[in-house]
Amino acid sequence: MRVDDVVVALDVGGTGMKCALIRPDGTVLHAERHPTDAGRGAEAVIGTILAVADGLAGKARADGLTPTALGIVVPGVVDEARGVAVWSANVGFRDVPLRELASARLGLPTALGHDVRAGGLAEARLGAGRDAGHVLFVAIGTGIAAAHVVAGSAATGAHGAAGELGHILVRAGGPVCGCGRPGCLEAIASASAIARRYTRLAAGPAEADAGHESAPTGRGRATVTAAEVAARAAAGEPLASQVWREAVAALADGLATGQALFDVETIVLGGGLAQAGAGLFDPLRSALRDRLTFHREPRLVPAALGDEAGCLGAALLALDQLETT
Amino acid sequence: MRVDDVVVALDVGGTGMKCALIRPDGTVLHAERHPTDAGRGAEAVIGTILAVADGLAGKARADGLTPTALGIVVPGVVDEARGVAVWSANVGFRDVPLRELASARLGLPTALGHDVRAGGLAEARLGAGRDAGHVLFVAIGTGIAAAHVVAGSAATGAHGAAGELGHILVRAGGPVCGCGRPGCLEAIASASAIARRYTRLAAGPAEADAGHESAPTGRGRATVTAAEVAARAAAGEPLASQVWREAVAALADGLATGQALFDVETIVLGGGLAQAGAGLFDPLRSALRDRLTFHREPRLVPAALGDEAGCLGAALLALDQLETT
Repeated sequence: MRVDDVVVALDVGGTGMKCALIRPDGTVLHAERHPTDAGRGAEAVIGTILAVADGLAGKARADGLTPTALGIVVPGVVDEARGVAVWSANVGFRDVPLRELASARLGLPTALGHDVRAGGLAEARLGAGRDAGHVLFVAIGTGIAAAHVVAGSAATGAHGAAGELGHILVRAGGPVCGCGRPGCLEAIASASAIARRYTRLAAGPAEADAGHESAPTGRGRATVTAAEVAARAAAGEPLASQVWREAVAALADGLATGQALFDVETIVLGGGLAQAGAGLFDPLRSALRDRLTFHREPRLVPAALGDEAGCLGAALLALDQLETT
Repeated sequence: MRVDDVVVALDVGGTGMKCALIRPDGTVLHAERHPTDAGRGAEAVIGTILAVADGLAGKARADGLTPTALGIVVPGVVDEARGVAVWSANVGFRDVPLRELASARLGLPTALGHDVRAGGLAEARLGAGRDAGHVLFVAIGTGIAAAHVVAGSAATGAHGAAGELGHILVRAGGPVCGCGRPGCLEAIASASAIARRYTRLAAGPAEADAGHESAPTGRGRATVTAAEVAARAAAGEPLASQVWREAVAALADGLATGQALFDVETIVLGGGLAQAGAGLFDPLRSALRDRLTFHREPRLVPAALGDEAGCLGAALLALDQLETT
């Protein structure tokens, strides 16, 4: 690696793409954001990804830098080994051989990864988990997903679908999840589930009893955000406190299951909900401790890299790719 | 490796030790069993382990073979990296540096491992999972434990406690587990939990309601085994069918959680309960399928190596140790 080497990194989400030129030591030299505009369909989104990546490589060269590799991460089910975006609902991808397409367009070694696994990789190597060999990164936002990182490498699973902590059972017979199954962690403790449940209960018992809490109703009712529920709970509002308490309990159950199976040193919480700070971490630590019997209690810490984690992880995947080729 | 090379392998359990001389290709040349007699205390058990291992190495030499390494596996929490049996309740070990003790006594490179992880390793490399790169081995007997094996290596966790599938929540507020927590998978679906629940319900409603189902009561009542519950369920007995159905449902919930987090190709079921055959596998496969929404369904197969898996796994750990030294 020379001092003017950089990698091109793209974190493609349902609404926007975070893109950067990043040095091998993790320094971000340049960053830009673009809308994904997923409604245009997969082909158009792929076109934008390739154009943005190509543009970044061109900008690097214009700045006297040498782009050496490209890393792209997307949500959903990603087969890292084959370089295929198997299924990404919110960007409309199905079996897209994105690694090959990008590598052909840019002429650079390319790595394709999963957004949460890449974020976990970055937090484990450069962020809040950097002192631990075994890290579980949990992203809590619209959904809940996790990445298990051991010795700086994130587990992918046999089909690119490992780490779906949002879709483990925590409440048998509980609210129906977006995936169709009742009682998933995500249906109770994701930011959107918290907002939905509070909004529905606040609307009164008749409506609260009217149906499942998971499916967006589309009735046009103003939705309170999870952050507002957290703030109201902190201020002592009984309904907000109840919804928050139930979410924290479900989350503690989910993390306890993760610890039973993975036995990590550090659990890093990221995503929007982790911004709730002590209002989340204090009761969650205590609830997790209550649930661990013979297991070692992991450190439970907030993510350190914010919403740049995925993009940094994409850069790490690109660099790893260089090392193995 | 020469043709007369063998490794000495010991699988130390709460009641007995399975011991063998095993060729690098997995051929068992000689096997013996010894009682553990754990009631004598840790020092006496350690003495027996060392004497048996030494005896086996001596027998190998007497037979014209060359013992090249030793592998020992024990239950509980095992720190493979440090070679320490951290906590093995049923053999009375606490922080026993067994690798160092054995290596000093026999003068051979020694590996210390965990019994279920070693069994999983053997099933993944030589047994029912041998065609899959990602395997979850689940042993169901008195308790429930699992080993996640990727590319022929079993995950240990940061403190040697990974894979505790028996201690994940499946029924919030359910029966109290031996570990002290309510609703663990092991408290509902282990062979002993099935036997206990059936026995208690068969004794009549008054007794069934009298308390938790998990703690052995010591009232001297004859206990029906899980195998008998399975047989009675197959014969259509309503109570047995109910208990069996509930256990299968809880087990399917546990396996679905495992699949969500690990995303394996093959789940191998071992331990006593897996002997129930189609009476277990048919409804369990169906119940697991019902619970998977977007995930790939893993193959669900019975273990192939029987109760030799742990001992074969100990041999594999010994051989792996040779490769890295």
